[in-house]
Amino acid sequence: MNKAPLLLKNKAALRKFIKSAKKDGKTIALVPTMGALHAGHASLIKKARQLADAVVVSVFVNPTQFGPNEDFAKYPRTLKEDLLVCQEMGADAVFAPQPKEMYFDDRSAWVNEEALSRFLCGARRIGHFKGVCTVVSKLFNLVQPDFACFGKKDAQQLLILERMVRDLDFPIKIVECPLIREKSGLALSSRNKYLSPEEKKEALVLSRSLKAAKDAVAKGKSAAETKKLIAKIIATSPLAKIDYISVCDRETLEEVKTFKKGQKILVALAVYFGTTRLIDNVWLTTPKK
Amino acid sequence: MNKAPLLLKNKAALRKFIKSAKKDGKTIALVPTMGALHAGHASLIKKARQLADAVVVSVFVNPTQFGPNEDFAKYPRTLKEDLLVCQEMGADAVFAPQPKEMYFDDRSAWVNEEALSRFLCGARRIGHFKGVCTVVSKLFNLVQPDFACFGKKDAQQLLILERMVRDLDFPIKIVECPLIREKSGLALSSRNKYLSPEEKKEALVLSRSLKAAKDAVAKGKSAAETKKLIAKIIATSPLAKIDYISVCDRETLEEVKTFKKGQKILVALAVYFGTTRLIDNVWLTTPKK
Repeated sequence: MNKAPLLLKNKAALRKFIKSAKKDGKTIALVPTMGALHAGHASLIKKARQLADAVVVSVFVNPTQFGPNEDFAKYPRTLKEDLLVCQEMGADAVFAPQPKEMYFDDRSAWVNEEALSRFLCGARRIGHFKGVCTVVSKLFNLVQPDFACFGKKDAQQLLILERMVRDLDFPIKIVECPLIREKSGLALSSRNKYLSPEEKKEALVLSRSLKAAKDAVAKGKSAAETKKLIAKIIATSPLAKIDYISVCDRETLEEVKTFKKGQKILVALAVYFGTTRLIDNVWLTTPKK
Repeated sequence: MNKAPLLLKNKAALRKFIKSAKKDGKTIALVPTMGALHAGHASLIKKARQLADAVVVSVFVNPTQFGPNEDFAKYPRTLKEDLLVCQEMGADAVFAPQPKEMYFDDRSAWVNEEALSRFLCGARRIGHFKGVCTVVSKLFNLVQPDFACFGKKDAQQLLILERMVRDLDFPIKIVECPLIREKSGLALSSRNKYLSPEEKKEALVLSRSLKAAKDAVAKGKSAAETKKLIAKIIATSPLAKIDYISVCDRETLEEVKTFKKGQKILVALAVYFGTTRLIDNVWLTTPKK
């Protein structure tokens, strides 16, 4: 059994931990999370453990990335269980601050990504990625990691943060980690806890539709045909309400009309089941010839 | 005579220098400049030299902080002379990249300060402080300094960058350095080179008016009286065209109507002489009783 990770509740304790690790010449990997850790997060921590001498997991439900009508208040908070996951995966420290430790009332400096954020979730969750970019920048400056691990589940977030690291010259390598699914195909998400058993069953249309999309693209179907196919499969669930279906370029996140050969694309969707909004996606490359 | 500083033209060379300095356990001080170095800059480098083991001066005329009708193209570029100033003051390295080394064509991540930037120069130079915050963040991430030295001449810039460091948790101490004046009283500025001899002479009304403002505040005059006095003195120059005169709180940069006792205030002004826009300021504390 691994040692329990250090629980750091404030910036000063975190900075002390980091200073000591740096002094010892250790490399550092950061896994930023909002807690409610599942096997997807565990895989990120495992990857971080392979990459670096010291692993820091942050557990912070970041208020600035939630819209006024979103689920900030009810978002699951399970620190006790999260610490056990972190211990099992071998994390060295868990940074779990309260919002007032992270934000001054008169906060006024923000980090914002203005191109990729215009599409997909960014078009619907106004201010979401500004909150994400800002809190991740803060965590980067606090932890000063060599590596930061993010899952492909939040595809747009990952691509925006890679752009942020490039444009602001953060001396950090973003590590892209695979999306983890239940055996059923359902993408792991902390928000799956909100689903009723029936909703959870019907939510399998998401992964099914993406698998069909993957096959369709491989067979040379067009972007429009692929989207139509996804919509048709999702429509087989009476509980599903589509927020968006996107077939977009992975560099720009702009909708693709005509596939280029060997184009890197993202097929992404957001679908409501009741009040729960689920996202899922698949990263594809169109046929090379 | 000091050794000539290392001239670093690209990020890779800078990162290599920084990595080596960090490995040797050296502390680092950064002096960000746009070049055309004068005695004000020299005093910043001197201060940096006192604070840290390694001193990096950046010389970069940052395009993103100039408006479309501003003086980006004609801003003085004097790298050869700047290197001599850096050598004389004992800098270890000078980072002097070209814009294309610093910015991708499809750049989209920015740092912006949204409160203090609304006032003074920020109200007139739209986007200016967004450009400043972004480039300084980039330099912070590239150089990873312990200290960064900025002059009080650019008072609003200094206060905004302090806010940025606070809100984004940069592990960096901003060092406030005094405004340096010619014997005549004229505040040193790279833009003084634009002035004709006559304009330069008349520009002395700025420092004269601020000196009078300082005396007026010390004697208990009101904010309105102080501003009126400044305007009256500047009006004695036929060439001066006032952009703004501000008597503001140094925490918020909001205009002060009624002084509080012991209030930290900034008296700042921007005045055109011909097409040249000069700024000057004085940092005051109102009488304690």
